[in-house]
Amino acid sequence: MKRGLLASVALLLTGPALAETHFDNLRGMSIDRQGRVDRFSGMVVDEEGRVVQLLDFGDRPRGEIDFYEDLNGATVVPGFIDSHAHVMALGLSKLTLDLSETRSLDEALALVAAYAAANPNNPWLVGRGWNEVTWGLGRLPTAAELDTVSGGRPIVLERADGHAVWASSAALAAANITAQTPDPAGGRIVRVGGTGAGSRAPAGVLVDNAMALVTDRVPPPRASDRNVALWEAEEEFLRHGVTAVADMGTSVEDWMTFRRAGDAGALRLRIMAYADGVPAILLIGGTGPTSWLYNDRLRLNGVKLWLDGALGSRGALLKADYTDDRGNRGLPVLDGTQLRNSMVRAAMDGFQVAIHAIGDAANADALDAIDQLAMDFTGDRRWRIEHAQVVDPADVPLFARHGTIASMQPIHQSSDRLMAEARLGPDRLAGAYAWRSIMAAGAPLAFGSDAPVEVADPLAGIAAAISRTGSDGEPQGGWQPQEAISREAALAAYTAGGAYAGFAEGRFGTLAVGERADFVVLDGDPLTASAADLRTMRVRQTFIGGVRVWDNERPAQRPEGEAE
Amino acid sequence: MKRGLLASVALLLTGPALAETHFDNLRGMSIDRQGRVDRFSGMVVDEEGRVVQLLDFGDRPRGEIDFYEDLNGATVVPGFIDSHAHVMALGLSKLTLDLSETRSLDEALALVAAYAAANPNNPWLVGRGWNEVTWGLGRLPTAAELDTVSGGRPIVLERADGHAVWASSAALAAANITAQTPDPAGGRIVRVGGTGAGSRAPAGVLVDNAMALVTDRVPPPRASDRNVALWEAEEEFLRHGVTAVADMGTSVEDWMTFRRAGDAGALRLRIMAYADGVPAILLIGGTGPTSWLYNDRLRLNGVKLWLDGALGSRGALLKADYTDDRGNRGLPVLDGTQLRNSMVRAAMDGFQVAIHAIGDAANADALDAIDQLAMDFTGDRRWRIEHAQVVDPADVPLFARHGTIASMQPIHQSSDRLMAEARLGPDRLAGAYAWRSIMAAGAPLAFGSDAPVEVADPLAGIAAAISRTGSDGEPQGGWQPQEAISREAALAAYTAGGAYAGFAEGRFGTLAVGERADFVVLDGDPLTASAADLRTMRVRQTFIGGVRVWDNERPAQRPEGEAE
Repeated sequence: MKRGLLASVALLLTGPALAETHFDNLRGMSIDRQGRVDRFSGMVVDEEGRVVQLLDFGDRPRGEIDFYEDLNGATVVPGFIDSHAHVMALGLSKLTLDLSETRSLDEALALVAAYAAANPNNPWLVGRGWNEVTWGLGRLPTAAELDTVSGGRPIVLERADGHAVWASSAALAAANITAQTPDPAGGRIVRVGGTGAGSRAPAGVLVDNAMALVTDRVPPPRASDRNVALWEAEEEFLRHGVTAVADMGTSVEDWMTFRRAGDAGALRLRIMAYADGVPAILLIGGTGPTSWLYNDRLRLNGVKLWLDGALGSRGALLKADYTDDRGNRGLPVLDGTQLRNSMVRAAMDGFQVAIHAIGDAANADALDAIDQLAMDFTGDRRWRIEHAQVVDPADVPLFARHGTIASMQPIHQSSDRLMAEARLGPDRLAGAYAWRSIMAAGAPLAFGSDAPVEVADPLAGIAAAISRTGSDGEPQGGWQPQEAISREAALAAYTAGGAYAGFAEGRFGTLAVGERADFVVLDGDPLTASAADLRTMRVRQTFIGGVRVWDNERPAQRPEGEAE
Repeated sequence: MKRGLLASVALLLTGPALAETHFDNLRGMSIDRQGRVDRFSGMVVDEEGRVVQLLDFGDRPRGEIDFYEDLNGATVVPGFIDSHAHVMALGLSKLTLDLSETRSLDEALALVAAYAAANPNNPWLVGRGWNEVTWGLGRLPTAAELDTVSGGRPIVLERADGHAVWASSAALAAANITAQTPDPAGGRIVRVGGTGAGSRAPAGVLVDNAMALVTDRVPPPRASDRNVALWEAEEEFLRHGVTAVADMGTSVEDWMTFRRAGDAGALRLRIMAYADGVPAILLIGGTGPTSWLYNDRLRLNGVKLWLDGALGSRGALLKADYTDDRGNRGLPVLDGTQLRNSMVRAAMDGFQVAIHAIGDAANADALDAIDQLAMDFTGDRRWRIEHAQVVDPADVPLFARHGTIASMQPIHQSSDRLMAEARLGPDRLAGAYAWRSIMAAGAPLAFGSDAPVEVADPLAGIAAAISRTGSDGEPQGGWQPQEAISREAALAAYTAGGAYAGFAEGRFGTLAVGERADFVVLDGDPLTASAADLRTMRVRQTFIGGVRVWDNERPAQRPEGEAE
């Protein structure tokens, strides 16, 4: 029998580093939650992957050393912790076909054909990123064109803007879309031929609310796809130096995927899971958070609750109207009672609560709910607000009252700033992406990426956090630059702050004796680099528990394995 | 914070036996699948709980011994394997109130009151076993009577025959049962007062199809209840010397309960899980059977598929009409195509397939399906038929063709014999509960209890298997006595045969060097005892992995722990 993917990965993880190893000749730094920096030049890691000694120049390892590794003076920082990401969504997106770089219909069809050939067992082929404008096509593509490369399989490809899908005839047939199918409210089936209603056949493109007619028919990923997706997501995090992730909205299927990898000894990344709502947490965790599993690689910490939508789609709950949509103050996902009931249900069994709150009204309500519950649910609860994107400056001090963690994503600020100005107008920007104010109020910060919404790159996140500029360096001098923080504070929010936010301090997050030796070898010093330098700084190698799990000079190939 | 149940159990399991232990002065026996017996007088168990040496009189342990235990000449047999049981159903049944021994309404009400006081946090109180006839009440009990001890809580108590429930007013209210509620088809709401339709209030007892009006409202068990239920089920198995179980029809919630115990180091029993259908196995196992988890204490082996119903309720699929119900040949749960599709889906990912087949038509179809699939799914598949209760003698040889395992429950034979005679008539009994014929055909046997349907007592099972009599010794000379088997064959089917049926050979099931030291200390020798002796034989102690997990002289108390 061929070896499966998980078994193949497990073999890779049993490297020689599972013994006492001396990492020497490095420019090491660790940082605590307050941003205090420790420097060292060597590190001894035991066979369980824990730091047993930090060395200054001239120090010698105390015990016997099995392996010696010279890092040639490179910079070593603690492994980054991404405190808000969607592991499986990131991985699954890597499995779909990316057409965003295609410049003609023919080029796109050739990519689809190659993808179809490379994935002979996928019942459906799924992709994204086409744009007939950049192709210079002058019209929409058709199902008939896709059928030339589909081999009769259903194919569904999302347009670059997410507002249309291009489907093969088999996909249209699977969705029972015919000339007789009416356009759904808010959607349109592009049609050809005929003249009267009911005689014009679907052409192959479905717009807006018509998209779901086909996309709802795409089968859910198979378990073997999920295994591969986890591997791809891990790879994406590891190449950016991320060694631990808070997975925000873990489904039962996601959790089972993590456990399959863990049981097989093939889980590389550390995952702190926040279940996708109360039913999921009760099924996964049952009576409370799980223990730390697989040598601190997996734990169910708590629950993710959604209080509002996003700012871009005007779903964020605001205290006053949207500036660009008078009369609209957003869409509540949970009402105040539902939020509090869910929080109580989770907190009574000791689950940590992480509340998605984007708008200032949502943040105010989340802070108020925490204030109410904190009377009954005492002890070390570490309530989290995810995003804390737009906060009324009057509410900022409330973060400190119960040590509520602000789990923020710096890159959102640079991606969103023009949109935020349109939605909020000039007078509400003082509390937008306001990490400095929130930190100054005394709240713990934890930084993340929201991957796959943004790239899972902590160095780019630190660049945004310290400069309030985007990858293009704009705007000059930074957007709302009074909210920039120091390099030390940003690095801490991506390391020790993330560990604290996930109850992981003492296990990982700093390079200190007794903690797991999770570290990143960089080609520059993030505590002296400019924002521009940070954006081009490269991760050379990533280590988890003292084992090299990513190496820039030896790019990983997904291990061959039969579909499991 | 108080310690939880799981943490408390985990502490109990870290006993001194986790070191090299010499068990001395015992009358040990092991048995292989063919019934060949090995005898020994001592055993050395290493710190991982594996047998490292079997000793004859005069032999000395080879290595250094940390602990010494004198078993005073007691009989030691391999831990029993129950190859067909329902772990969580057994445990949950232990959590409900048993009224079957009450002899008056007052006695029952007193028990209910005590149960309510002992379970202050249960939202509903559930029980069973009352009978107004044995109480000499001359009428049915009422909701008003139950309300005197309900404290306003919903209570639902099933009558001894399972054909009625007695509900408190709160339970009736939760089900919205009022004077206006019509009787459902096939059911009756017992009523009082009034004269016309719609004016007679529900009295408190619901008959047959009306039962579900209330029982559907009982909330599912909480995770903390499931933890306790698992503990109770383990206790029930361990006190009967059962050290491993095939759990037939594991739900996702069941699996999560097993994992919670495993993660906490509190799983005592070995559980080989067969998921409750294809969706459950794909969610739990994903890409294939799990690895052996928690030191061989848990594995998802495969899937349980239901092909027909039971003989008693005339759901078993027969080739000819029921003798006592002409025109009826039973109710298929899956049709032939569904069965084969499910088998293919499971087998393609390497899951083992266990098919519930009671009637001769169901067994014929299951054997036929296995015969068809065995061409495509080669290798060591170990197809299982669960119950194999009524088999056409012409079909018996088919068991041997692909080594199909007959997973049978000897006590069913003694419980069912009069019912089976009524259902089948005299001419179809030759293939009923026909373990000797099936074994003689060359099929592997694995014996179990079907607990909680029957008592989880392997010694009683062996008594039935060798004598074809019930606990009352009837019928004299045995029922269809030509199907009795030897003590050795019966013991093998409860030990090594069960291990083979669950792909566990080499891990546990025999007392051999390299296998886990799972054993039972008995106060008699099952290979010389009569059926009557077997039924009174006592389990003194049960060991799993060399650790004493049950002791007749120190009855276990459920560890105190806060609700988890």
